[in-house]
Order: sequence, then C-alpha cells, then structure tokens
Amino acid sequence: MAESWATLGVDLHLEPVGASGLRRGLTDALRDAVRSGRLASGTRLPSSRSLAADLGIARNTVAEAYADLVAEGWLTARQGSGTRVADRAVIPPGSTAPRRRDPARPAYDLIPGTPDLAAFPRTEWLKAGRRALATAPFDALGYGDPRGRPELRSALAGYLARARGVRTRPDSIVITAGFAHALRILGTLLRTRGARSVAVESYGLDVHWGLLRDAGLRTPALPYDELGTDPGALRNEGAVLLTPAHQFPMGTPLHPDRRAAVVDWARHTGGLVLEDDYDGEFRYDRQPVGALQGLDPDRVVYLGTASKSLAPGLRLGWMVLPPSLVEEAITAKGQVDTCGVLDQLTLAEFLVSGAYDRHVRSARLRYRRRRDALAAAVTERSPEVRVTGIAAGLHVLLRLPPGTEQSVVQAATWQDLALHGLAFHRHPEAVAEPLDALVVGYGTPSDSAWSGALEALCRVLP
Amino acid sequence: MAESWATLGVDLHLEPVGASGLRRGLTDALRDAVRSGRLASGTRLPSSRSLAADLGIARNTVAEAYADLVAEGWLTARQGSGTRVADRAVIPPGSTAPRRRDPARPAYDLIPGTPDLAAFPRTEWLKAGRRALATAPFDALGYGDPRGRPELRSALAGYLARARGVRTRPDSIVITAGFAHALRILGTLLRTRGARSVAVESYGLDVHWGLLRDAGLRTPALPYDELGTDPGALRNEGAVLLTPAHQFPMGTPLHPDRRAAVVDWARHTGGLVLEDDYDGEFRYDRQPVGALQGLDPDRVVYLGTASKSLAPGLRLGWMVLPPSLVEEAITAKGQVDTCGVLDQLTLAEFLVSGAYDRHVRSARLRYRRRRDALAAAVTERSPEVRVTGIAAGLHVLLRLPPGTEQSVVQAATWQDLALHGLAFHRHPEAVAEPLDALVVGYGTPSDSAWSGALEALCRVLP
Repeated sequence: MAESWATLGVDLHLEPVGASGLRRGLTDALRDAVRSGRLASGTRLPSSRSLAADLGIARNTVAEAYADLVAEGWLTARQGSGTRVADRAVIPPGSTAPRRRDPARPAYDLIPGTPDLAAFPRTEWLKAGRRALATAPFDALGYGDPRGRPELRSALAGYLARARGVRTRPDSIVITAGFAHALRILGTLLRTRGARSVAVESYGLDVHWGLLRDAGLRTPALPYDELGTDPGALRNEGAVLLTPAHQFPMGTPLHPDRRAAVVDWARHTGGLVLEDDYDGEFRYDRQPVGALQGLDPDRVVYLGTASKSLAPGLRLGWMVLPPSLVEEAITAKGQVDTCGVLDQLTLAEFLVSGAYDRHVRSARLRYRRRRDALAAAVTERSPEVRVTGIAAGLHVLLRLPPGTEQSVVQAATWQDLALHGLAFHRHPEAVAEPLDALVVGYGTPSDSAWSGALEALCRVLP
Repeated sequence: MAESWATLGVDLHLEPVGASGLRRGLTDALRDAVRSGRLASGTRLPSSRSLAADLGIARNTVAEAYADLVAEGWLTARQGSGTRVADRAVIPPGSTAPRRRDPARPAYDLIPGTPDLAAFPRTEWLKAGRRALATAPFDALGYGDPRGRPELRSALAGYLARARGVRTRPDSIVITAGFAHALRILGTLLRTRGARSVAVESYGLDVHWGLLRDAGLRTPALPYDELGTDPGALRNEGAVLLTPAHQFPMGTPLHPDRRAAVVDWARHTGGLVLEDDYDGEFRYDRQPVGALQGLDPDRVVYLGTASKSLAPGLRLGWMVLPPSLVEEAITAKGQVDTCGVLDQLTLAEFLVSGAYDRHVRSARLRYRRRRDALAAAVTERSPEVRVTGIAAGLHVLLRLPPGTEQSVVQAATWQDLALHGLAFHRHPEAVAEPLDALVVGYGTPSDSAWSGALEALCRVLP
C-alpha cells in the first residue's frame, strides 16, 4: 500500500489558484498518471488524509478529486479496501490492424488542389464560431434539414449571387461534405433517373470520373482545343461535367460561344450541366468569369466548395440545384443532414460578417505574388518553357518542349519534389492534341516552404 | 445624386473605438444597407469628402470603407461617375423551389432519440475548440485520412476501453457522420461481401431497417421475449443488428446467455454482430453493461455516436471494426474523410481533457432526476400504468392496459403532445407478444419545458 505521495512517482504541479484550482490540478495529474500507465491497474492510492498531509492541502480537496475520478471510472473505491486504480483494458502500443500507407511527405509539394493550409484564418474562424454559437437557437443542434442549415444556405445564396452571378434561392441549395460528396449524390440521382453516361472533359481529375463510374455511369471524354472543351460532340448523355470558369488543369476559361452551346444542348436534350466552380474566387488579371449557372438555373447544377478558399478539412461544399431536382437530390443524399451544424453556422457567420471576403482578398494577393514570382523565375531560367493558364486559380500549366514531360517528372521525383505531369490528368479516351506539360500547384506550400519549392522546380526544368 | 448621409436612410452606429473601429463600423453599416436592399442597385453614394464632413470623421476612413466594399463587390467605383451600389442579382422574397414541410413544433415533445439540446455545453465546447485549433498542425486541415483524424480515433480508443470495455486500436476505428452514415457504410460493405440479409430486432427504428433495405438487404426480425432478443433464430444472415446494452425501445439489457449465444453464432457462421450502443453512457441504478464487442472484437462491429451524449447536430459517430474489415469499410465509405476536421479535433480534446466525462456525469444526474419525477408522477396518477426499462438511457416504456395504446396516442395528439406508441417501433414481421405501451423520451424537452410535458403526459394516461 502506497502511503506516501512520493512512492507513487506522479508529477504534480499544483498552481496556487484556490481550492477549486487545486482540486482540478490534482484530478488532472492523477488522471494523466493512470492514463499513461504510470499508475498501474490495481495500485492502491494513499488515503485522502495522508495524501492531504503530504501535499499540505485540505483533506476535502483530495477526497473530492478521488470522487471525480471514481465517477469517471479511472479509480474504484470500495469500503474496506480503499481507493485503487481501476482495472481497465490498456491499449498496448502497436496495432493489429493493417496500417494504411502514409506516404512520407515530400520535401517540396507542388501538387495542385490544396490551398496554403498554414494561412487558414484560425483566429477569425474561432471568433465567427463563438458568435455563431452564441446566437444559434438550441434546436439548431438537433437532427437537421437534409439540405443543411438555413442560415448557411441563405448566406450562400446572397454571396454566390454577388460574387459569382449565381441565380438561386436558399431552398434550392444543398450543403455537402465537399465536392466529392456532391458528385456522389449527383451520380446516384442521374442513375436513378435512367442516365447511362456523363460526358467529361479530356483533362480533369480521375477521382471525379471514378465517382461517376462507381454510380454505374460511363464517362466519355469531350474534345479539347484552344477554345476549351467542345460541347459539339455531346449527344444524349444524361449530363456533362465541366470546369467553365477555369478549366482544370489547362487553366483557360470556356469560350463564350461554347458556354452558350452547352446550355443549348441541355435545353434541347433535357440533359444537365454540372458546373464545377472549384476556384472561382481566385482571379488576377481579368474580370471574373461569372458562373455558367446564371445562363440557365433550370439546367445547370452549380457546385462550389470551401476546400480551395478556406481548407479541405472543413469538408463543406454546396450544390445549387434546379428547383425541380431538390427532392431527388435529398432522396439520393439521405434524409439526415451529413455535415456538422457548428461549422455550417460558422461559415454562415463568416460569409455574412464579411470575414470570408476579407480572407479571400488577402489570399488572392498572396497567391498572385507567388504566381508572379513563379512566372518570372521560369521565364528567366527556362526560356523554352511556356507559362500558361495563369490568370486565375492556384495552379499554372508549364508547357514543356515536346517529349520531355516524363523525364522532367522523373527528375522531380529524384529531387523529392511532388508535382503532376499533364499526362496524370489526361482522360484515357482524351480527344486532344498531345502536350508535354507540368501542372504546378503554387497554392500548396506554406509561405516558408514556397521559395524552396520554386527553386526545386526551376532545377528540374529543361 | 445623394449628397448627404441623411438622404441615404442608413442606420449608422459608429462606436468611438479609433479609426480602424470607425472604418469597420462604416463598412458594416453600408454592407448591411446594400444587402438588405435599403440601398438599391445603382444608387450613387455621397463623395467620400462630403460623407466624411457629414459624419465628422476623416475622409480617408470613408475612402477606405468604400474601397473595401468595392473589393467585396458591393459597390462599384468608376472615374467620373463616382461610387455606386453594384448591380447584382437580388434575392426576392419567396421561393420557386418546393418548400419542404416543416411540421410545426409540438407544444410538448417527448419523442425519444434526442437529448436536451438546451444543455449542450456550448462554453466548454468552444474552449475545447480553441485549444484544439491552437495546437493542430496545419496539415490537419487538408484532405485527411478517410478513417478520420488520428487524434480523435486515439482518444476514442482510450475512452471506449475505459467506459465501455471496448477492445480496439485507433487504426480500427472509422469516424462517421453519425449512426445512420455508419449503417449505410456497413450495408454497402455487407452487400459487397455477398450478404443477402441482416437480422434485426422485433422492436427498433424503421429508418435503420430502411437504410439496410436501401443497400439491397432483407431485414428479417428475431423473436423478442422477457430475456430480450432471441438469437436462437439466427441462420445464415450476413449480420445481426442489436442494441445489447439497452434495447431500443424496450429498455432492457440482453440476457448474458444470449450475449454469449449471439457471439457463438457469429463465430460459427462467419456472420457479423452490429452493436448499436446509442446511449451506453447513461446508466442509473446498476453497474454499466459493458459492450458486447469486448467478447469478440473480431466478430462485432461496435457503433457509437455523439448524438445522445452531446448533440445530433455535431454529426459525429464512430465504428469500431474488426481489423480485417477496415479496408473494406474505407472502400464502402469513399477515400475522402467526410467529417469536418475541426469538430473531430474538438471532440478529441473534449475526451482527453475530461470535459466529456464531466458533461456526461452532469447530464446523467439531470436525466435521472427527470426519470425519478416521471416514475413517481405516473405511479401516483395512473396506477394501472407500469413504468419499465428505466435503469438507463433517455426514455422509458410505459406499459398500458391492453387495448388502450391507440386511444392514448390519439389523446396525446389532441393535447399537442408528441410521443410514440410502441406500435410505431414494431417490426412489420415482429415475433413478439403484442403489448400496449408508450415510448417516452424524457431527455428531449429543455429544463423549462419538462414539467409541462410531464403534466401533459399524465393528463392523457388512462
């Protein structure tokens, strides 16, 4: 039986902040000692009287700390056998579950698709969260509307009208756990409606095509040329998935004639246009290209996300649906809201208070500086490389001399520099002139890692 | 052209907090005026010089506020035509999307399944969120592990071992957007493995059976008697869905012999046990019934949720999987995490700091008082009604005289009292002696609504 504190070997730092602080400090120290295994199961603790004498504090304070830990299940107290560390399953180190491969982080990361996570506005986000939670009605914390919180849908309807020219009502917006979740829902919806295929662009993201294929849809590729994706090849597909404002990864906007043509196709065939507006907020040299959705809100599903403007970890995206499709989308999604209410309320507050605009504005300036530095460095060091698709977004396309893409990507690997060759984003059935190029995500590094990444990039360019 | 502030009709409350406060106040007031339509599209604003004179503030402050709002897209500034309210799509009131029926909230709500949302620990949650975000590495905000944040899986492995006797490792836990999401994933997983049916209990939740049916599985019902659900009728179903610690809605624990029998069945047939531990934290009169999962972690999938212990709006649940099923579950879930990182980190901090234990303990005391008041009132006022299933959870079963359930539920409707008759929770193919009873969720009302709800309940009892 341990009768003195010293024999327990527990670090105890009691701050002189009154009895309640002492009790809390003691409780925390004991809990940590049990959790970490320093106090083993079955260990008998000193009586509250002797421990109090050891520590020079009131006996009651010790008794209360013990009672807290008994109630939490860390200790047991039984008449006659004193207070002991509870007998609990201890988690041994190591694991019998197969470990997922966690690829070592590369020294330099220029993979497109992620913003600078170190610039997430933590302080502003916490402030907005506090304001949002202070005013939220308590039933906002219940099982909610499957479309998501009305506060957020309302804030988005206003923001998207103002910033992207989207025409909608809060009732037609469905909040999702990011773009991939939205595309899953739309895949299910289209399949349920009897669609067999969704046309996609010759360049894009394989994971998106995969989500549609998982829903049982074919994904034929449309031709791509200097005016962007050519909708002339559309036939009776159920829908077409496009990045009209800023083609990913080519970086060009869809030509106005083709914007009109794709909407015409949708009207004539009853097909849907799925507009992936992943980085519509980030424009530099030119007037923003408004959302295609504004041309025909009854035929275009607009898809936005907080993943590029704030952070993917929020897992928040939104679908703006033709009103007639809202109920089908809810059926495909499931009748329970899938996104945490607190982040939804916080984003609503962020939008309405203007904090979102301020954050995007400052991010835009920072990314623009990076893009300028990148263009200048590449032009100076590698005159044969052409920097294209630079007027918007978080990535550029570097056009390489013919036949060099594969060897440059290989050289990058040796330098521990992560980036994608254009081939990585080419559809297996792409209808497009073959090009050698790199897709460089200059938004990805933190400020402190950026110049090293740029230097590594310049080293591997021809 | 409006040359004086007064003609704009904008409420302006400028707090005397220095130039930056003035600028912010002015920007906010103007933004609100534009957003609400009080300043119409095209309205020309006073020059910064004249507005500054009107308000008695520096001209630069006004010019900066205008510049902010031009950058945000609310105003336009053109050489020669001054500063005007931008021409933006305005959201008219009303909607063209079909409104979803939002059933009027009842005067008294005793529907089971929701905790007292007014008691959500907002202050503690915000504090934990601040601590969690202060220490999170920045790449925690990226596209994450599809199983969820490691901090939360680690905290849950420890907590579930200690509080529920679950035996697992963080690697075998998958975070979900609540129980329904987990059941969807498991339905897909089981169907992919070739399962045709999942056995369920004779009493339960229709939405759960529906989720399994949506995955293409049949849901035959097992017999129910005074020892709980009888696993003796299990054959070659792919899995069985059970509430072993506290049968929903009957309120009884599964008899120890039957706990052993269901695990034996799983071992012999290769079937899985899906353990729905929805309210395992709330026990009153007896030792906690540990999780069935502890008997055989290789055959039981343990399912927990924050929906009863904290709030459904968090949309956080967890699956503890047999290690061999982790990869299949990730495939069924999708390769991208679906839950917001911030809530995951906050819950981890909540668990590790002891705030979760403290919250559950105080909630337990409060619910216990309600249950005691309910049992006393019903026993006194309606001696023919038997209060059962009361040793745990957030609901009781009130056994009614034979043949009276329907009329009592009808009387409750007239009193604007929402509750469920037992028939509502009976499987269409239930194998169980018919009973007349009410399922009363005493956790649902806020403290201020509780006594009124109890009184309304007593009025409708026979």
